[in-house]
Amino acid sequence: MSLKIAIIGGGSSYTPEILEGFIQRQATFPVTEIVLVDVKAGEEKVDTICQLGNRMIAEAGVNIQLTWTLDRRSALQGADFVSTQIRVGGLAARAHDERIPLKHGLIGQETNGAGGIMKAFRTIPVLMEIAEEMQELCPDAWMINFTNPAGIVTEALLNHSVHKKVIGVCNIPFNMRHSTAELLQAAPEDVLIRFIGLNHFIFGDKVYVKGEDRTADVFQKLLQKELDYNPANIMPLDWSETFIKAVRLLPNPYHQYYFQTPSVLEKDKQAYQENGTRAEVVQALEESLFALYKQESLRKKPEELEQRGGAFYSQVACQLMDSIYNHKEDIQTVNTWNHGAIPELPYDAVIEANCVITKQGPKPISIGEIPAPVRGMIQNMKAMEELVIKASISGEYEDAYNAFLVNPLVQDEKKAKLVLDELLEAHKDYLPQYNRM
Amino acid sequence: MSLKIAIIGGGSSYTPEILEGFIQRQATFPVTEIVLVDVKAGEEKVDTICQLGNRMIAEAGVNIQLTWTLDRRSALQGADFVSTQIRVGGLAARAHDERIPLKHGLIGQETNGAGGIMKAFRTIPVLMEIAEEMQELCPDAWMINFTNPAGIVTEALLNHSVHKKVIGVCNIPFNMRHSTAELLQAAPEDVLIRFIGLNHFIFGDKVYVKGEDRTADVFQKLLQKELDYNPANIMPLDWSETFIKAVRLLPNPYHQYYFQTPSVLEKDKQAYQENGTRAEVVQALEESLFALYKQESLRKKPEELEQRGGAFYSQVACQLMDSIYNHKEDIQTVNTWNHGAIPELPYDAVIEANCVITKQGPKPISIGEIPAPVRGMIQNMKAMEELVIKASISGEYEDAYNAFLVNPLVQDEKKAKLVLDELLEAHKDYLPQYNRM
Amino acid sequence: MSLKIAIIGGGSSYTPEILEGFIQRQATFPVTEIVLVDVKAGEEKVDTICQLGNRMIAEAGVNIQLTWTLDRRSALQGADFVSTQIRVGGLAARAHDERIPLKHGLIGQETNGAGGIMKAFRTIPVLMEIAEEMQELCPDAWMINFTNPAGIVTEALLNHSVHKKVIGVCNIPFNMRHSTAELLQAAPEDVLIRFIGLNHFIFGDKVYVKGEDRTADVFQKLLQKELDYNPANIMPLDWSETFIKAVRLLPNPYHQYYFQTPSVLEKDKQAYQENGTRAEVVQALEESLFALYKQESLRKKPEELEQRGGAFYSQVACQLMDSIYNHKEDIQTVNTWNHGAIPELPYDAVIEANCVITKQGPKPISIGEIPAPVRGMIQNMKAMEELVIKASISGEYEDAYNAFLVNPLVQDEKKAKLVLDELLEAHKDYLPQYNRM
Amino acid sequence: MSLKIAIIGGGSSYTPEILEGFIQRQATFPVTEIVLVDVKAGEEKVDTICQLGNRMIAEAGVNIQLTWTLDRRSALQGADFVSTQIRVGGLAARAHDERIPLKHGLIGQETNGAGGIMKAFRTIPVLMEIAEEMQELCPDAWMINFTNPAGIVTEALLNHSVHKKVIGVCNIPFNMRHSTAELLQAAPEDVLIRFIGLNHFIFGDKVYVKGEDRTADVFQKLLQKELDYNPANIMPLDWSETFIKAVRLLPNPYHQYYFQTPSVLEKDKQAYQENGTRAEVVQALEESLFALYKQESLRKKPEELEQRGGAFYSQVACQLMDSIYNHKEDIQTVNTWNHGAIPELPYDAVIEANCVITKQGPKPISIGEIPAPVRGMIQNMKAMEELVIKASISGEYEDAYNAFLVNPLVQDEKKAKLVLDELLEAHKDYLPQYNRM
Repeated sequence: MSLKIAIIGGGSSYTPEILEGFIQRQATFPVTEIVLVDVKAGEEKVDTICQLGNRMIAEAGVNIQLTWTLDRRSALQGADFVSTQIRVGGLAARAHDERIPLKHGLIGQETNGAGGIMKAFRTIPVLMEIAEEMQELCPDAWMINFTNPAGIVTEALLNHSVHKKVIGVCNIPFNMRHSTAELLQAAPEDVLIRFIGLNHFIFGDKVYVKGEDRTADVFQKLLQKELDYNPANIMPLDWSETFIKAVRLLPNPYHQYYFQTPSVLEKDKQAYQENGTRAEVVQALEESLFALYKQESLRKKPEELEQRGGAFYSQVACQLMDSIYNHKEDIQTVNTWNHGAIPELPYDAVIEANCVITKQGPKPISIGEIPAPVRGMIQNMKAMEELVIKASISGEYEDAYNAFLVNPLVQDEKKAKLVLDELLEAHKDYLPQYNRM
Repeated sequence: MSLKIAIIGGGSSYTPEILEGFIQRQATFPVTEIVLVDVKAGEEKVDTICQLGNRMIAEAGVNIQLTWTLDRRSALQGADFVSTQIRVGGLAARAHDERIPLKHGLIGQETNGAGGIMKAFRTIPVLMEIAEEMQELCPDAWMINFTNPAGIVTEALLNHSVHKKVIGVCNIPFNMRHSTAELLQAAPEDVLIRFIGLNHFIFGDKVYVKGEDRTADVFQKLLQKELDYNPANIMPLDWSETFIKAVRLLPNPYHQYYFQTPSVLEKDKQAYQENGTRAEVVQALEESLFALYKQESLRKKPEELEQRGGAFYSQVACQLMDSIYNHKEDIQTVNTWNHGAIPELPYDAVIEANCVITKQGPKPISIGEIPAPVRGMIQNMKAMEELVIKASISGEYEDAYNAFLVNPLVQDEKKAKLVLDELLEAHKDYLPQYNRM
Repeated sequence: MSLKIAIIGGGSSYTPEILEGFIQRQATFPVTEIVLVDVKAGEEKVDTICQLGNRMIAEAGVNIQLTWTLDRRSALQGADFVSTQIRVGGLAARAHDERIPLKHGLIGQETNGAGGIMKAFRTIPVLMEIAEEMQELCPDAWMINFTNPAGIVTEALLNHSVHKKVIGVCNIPFNMRHSTAELLQAAPEDVLIRFIGLNHFIFGDKVYVKGEDRTADVFQKLLQKELDYNPANIMPLDWSETFIKAVRLLPNPYHQYYFQTPSVLEKDKQAYQENGTRAEVVQALEESLFALYKQESLRKKPEELEQRGGAFYSQVACQLMDSIYNHKEDIQTVNTWNHGAIPELPYDAVIEANCVITKQGPKPISIGEIPAPVRGMIQNMKAMEELVIKASISGEYEDAYNAFLVNPLVQDEKKAKLVLDELLEAHKDYLPQYNRM
Repeated sequence: MSLKIAIIGGGSSYTPEILEGFIQRQATFPVTEIVLVDVKAGEEKVDTICQLGNRMIAEAGVNIQLTWTLDRRSALQGADFVSTQIRVGGLAARAHDERIPLKHGLIGQETNGAGGIMKAFRTIPVLMEIAEEMQELCPDAWMINFTNPAGIVTEALLNHSVHKKVIGVCNIPFNMRHSTAELLQAAPEDVLIRFIGLNHFIFGDKVYVKGEDRTADVFQKLLQKELDYNPANIMPLDWSETFIKAVRLLPNPYHQYYFQTPSVLEKDKQAYQENGTRAEVVQALEESLFALYKQESLRKKPEELEQRGGAFYSQVACQLMDSIYNHKEDIQTVNTWNHGAIPELPYDAVIEANCVITKQGPKPISIGEIPAPVRGMIQNMKAMEELVIKASISGEYEDAYNAFLVNPLVQDEKKAKLVLDELLEAHKDYLPQYNRM
């Protein structure tokens, strides 16, 4: 019996992690074939990854056929799962997403704010193409999408593409669970956080350990500054006591963009002056990683990889595929249709929610009303996301402007235009919908 | 460590079943103490049950302290779970609920229609008293309510009493799962039915076996009349091919009251002429059961008990308590708050839904929109249930009339009054709210 | 300046009334051209009406060009308002709608129950054709639809046709207002009833006279049996004191079908035995009316016309057109999109609601929550209506069955099929969607 | 027949305007008695106003008894309408609301942002007291509330006080209508703007003149910078072409706080440096107005009053009272319960909406879905308003912090605390709920 995985964007420096995941799960999730797909520009990288992967497979003594191709259609043919982790325009594009907003005094970040919107504009058309090909070539396969902005992308695909087997994943809920477990000195698998919200705008209002409510303990410890939820790629958190006491929700690191805007902006500017954009920092990091990957002696995922912010993404994806494949009915936090789980958000919106994972996909556990302190902000964010999706598909300048205008990290009538215009120009090679004849 | 269960209505002939359940589950659900509670009129019965129960415990060689009392408060003190299976007014009252509607040409049934409403009127005030006592004497205990009409009763308690740890259970979803498993020759624990609706008005629209969608197979077999969902206490089903093809939902036996009203009414009338009310039939059955229970030689639950319609109720209750106690996060079908799971029903309505069972109680899995063929009927039933609850509490004649008027098994301006007036008179000893000075 | 009206179904015996309306309103609503349209079978009738109409015009000394045609497209060309009052299949079809259900022990009525559903099946395809032609030939014209079941037809057109300028009208709210005015000895134009619900399932919960709340007075008088809301075509009302006190909503005559089903059925059966169907009674009435219409000496609308149930329909339509034309911003009760006016019904449902009438059409005044005693029944009716619309368009047998099954006047698994099958057969010439090759 | 008005805050410099309104409307709205109420500190002012008012009455030759009192209860006794235009803490408090946020780099404005929240904290408790007194002394009287933040105050009263006859008014919709009329060279009474939103956050998406859709013309002219909606008290608008084309909604002047935050902040800071707070400017203006009012020769409302931002408030209030009194059923834009008019906002929220004005109060015309570009922002604003109301009543520091935190003009974890703490301290004499023993 075969079990085939296609990894779109297989030349990513993260790929060794997901390969490690498949290797380790062979007993329960017996992958037989993996095809790495990339674009021409990533040929050398994907070849490097493939060679490393094959050394890892050999070392582990498992039986997985790992190859790479530039022909996406052949990779999709007969796939059971398709993971998508693409970066349209590469790190050079990311640098624009970060630099241009910053230049106008706005947060420059690739998944939130102006940069995140522009990343959606570049990404959604490509992923919709992939979804169409899946519908033709592997209609029963699940797309597991890592590509940011993951929530927006997932909603675009679920509501506007033909292929409906799409799940968005993010490592933030995973990291919050692990950090909280550490804080409570509990095993991560015993910890359940009641999550509420959207990708990169998710909150936790209850923490259970083996079903016991430990929420009060967590806030107690948070007030004592014991918790550190930070993935490596964003700055350390520093929430005030008042914020924690009043809001009484577990924040995630991305919330600092919204609640600590001026100070984050200041730090970002400083970091930019010292090191250039995060894209450029990552570029250097990637180069050193690939140098490492090329060493014939390397036969496992190098530890250096974990220092990147995306760590554990692959673990999230692997355990999701495993639970679908084995119909585990366990609870994981993924991006899927709301369908009433949060009545105050649109029925067909995509939310990031605790779901029971079944062979039929994720089934959200009802959440109910959003806690008052963040209801409006979550609704605002979702409405903005809908505008982003509309503009990603329509290619109408006015739609794009509206998305920028109401984004809480822009929300400036004049800057919205300035930053949009520059970003459209900088990315024009990757925005066919905005550059029709 | 102690684990105490209070069984309100412990003199019920069903009690040996739940006792057997606790005995069998000792390994994972180590009950240490069970107190049977009943009213003065049930003293002899509860004593009989208690003696039988103690023989069953001795036979099994387990360590459970089983006693009985008429002092409810002492039984509740320190309880971890409270099961409620009461019959206010006893079988004599049930006979009225069945006979009086029938006399007026209406379905006479104790959980649906006029009889079900009247049972709610008698039951809700008593259960609200128990809930108040629980809040005082065992605030952390879960009430597991079997008492019919279980959905209405649960909504009344959750929305109008102080004690919020209340779950309603019914054996219908359990029986549907088991019947469907048999039909598909699958293990019941591998079968998941996607349930939609309300207690005694629940439908299934999808059937999964180990996560595989087997819905089409089930309907195929239903069309070949292979399925028999019937609990023993109501008549065999006979759904037409057209009904099954068009509605395409798994019905439950109670649906015949609503979709086959005239023929059911005819059968009920005939049965009444031959055997009297079902209450009277049950009365005879109970007497023979109690005669059996008194035999010193009987040291386990007699097989005769399974022939009653309520069979498996106890299994449902035991596995629910077990999953709460052990925070199993498995999926069971219980009555709990909607909270958005079905957006077309009120947020605070109680629905019968697939829930993840945790130590914090049941968390419904989002259902989404109700299938078109039954949306209106389910909404109508829920609105009627709210009127029943209002009238159960208010004791206002007009409220009671409105509930009868819109009940789909009454829905007759004049009969509503006739049957209501006779029932109020017949039950006046058990309706303090309607007989205030 | 021209103002052209097309009257589809111009051969109706009601047409003289609407012609009279246009003649009387010349000062404010200066109609210049009226074209009566009918089908071949109605040629003689429409000619008779046209001749009578021209005599009425001459008598009044107004300047209106009145003609008739069988060519619908030419009539629609350039129209400003299009009134639709068609009867697909004529009174012969109506006779089937009444007789066949009655034969199976169900209410036989042409706008509610099985008959009403079947009338929708025949009517909706034809009106959708007309709507399409309007979009082509007179895109700015309003369709004022009288054709029953008016609410269902209006929802079908608004949600499934291209032409969105459609308003449904009924004389029931008009009659309720006039009867209530009489009861309170007030001028009808000073009376405002707060209406809630759907066409032929509408209730009033408040009565204001010049803004003063007179609701209590109305119920007082209703309890004294002083009110008679009855249009001529249905039986006298006889609501019990309890019903009025408990429900505390102004009922309309159609409600007796739902709340007094057995006695209405009995009366209907008796009437049928004595006089045949209502269709046949109307047939005779129509013949005598047309005999009258042919008399050259008749130069105005004969008083005999008012004895028919539809009286005042035309007045309702004329005042609606007048208010649109003159942007009166007055309040009229029409069938239009809900759009939140009743949050417990679907957003895109059509409701019968008090609307401010503007040149841009009717704008419903928010109603809010439905009074508890009828919430479920209204939701049920609306869900049934949606099934009727679906089946009217799809031509799928299963859809048709579902509509019959859940209709509160059928709601019988077996009779639904029997009555549906006979009706489909009887009407097959008028149901192209159910008789595709 | 008597018609009594109580004006709470009668010593306001605006009062001559509302007095003029009553004098001019005598024919249709025959006020017989007006009592001006103020607090001890306003004694001199209210006396000055009363004397001027009596000179105006004498000049007009109408028969109105005008007096003043510090005894609010006596003024409320038997009132038919109560207008509330209070400023708790006076202009000195306003100066704090403006200066303190500005000091922390936040917009300093008395109705929006931090200042508006703090004004709500001071105002709501006093108005709730007045509402309670009205329920006792004049239960049938309508409160017409001018006091800002008018929307928030109205929601607080409607949802948390016993007296439910409360309407909030603002001159912004009135001014938008008049400016738009001027732009289209139409009479204001012929212009209807379809309004959507909340007080001080209201948009118009359609403009009709005598029912004709003139929206396109308006936007055309707006793009040519012809429209000037500005009331005198806030800065000139300068919306970019892109904003107008993309959002395609009529903005109001307050929107610049949200869409042009940095430049408005800059202007505010500059204005502050030059002239001090707006409160101080107004203080000076008021002094010169009162000097004028004291001149015996002044026998009508002086023109100088119109230069203040609140101009036309009184006209708005007078026409509202007139329409209620005369049950005019005309359309006015006021603050009242949503009740489904905008389904995407809570049912019991207060919105600023076009309403039919009846003797029973305002009935909102259904609006339906919010235009996409502003849906999220409106939802966010409403959620923030709910937090403000909660904190106004609870007096809990955490509630107050949450309101500040999510206010779009604050939204900064640290500044929220700084500005809140300073404002609580500055206003402590007027915040009993935050200064309980």
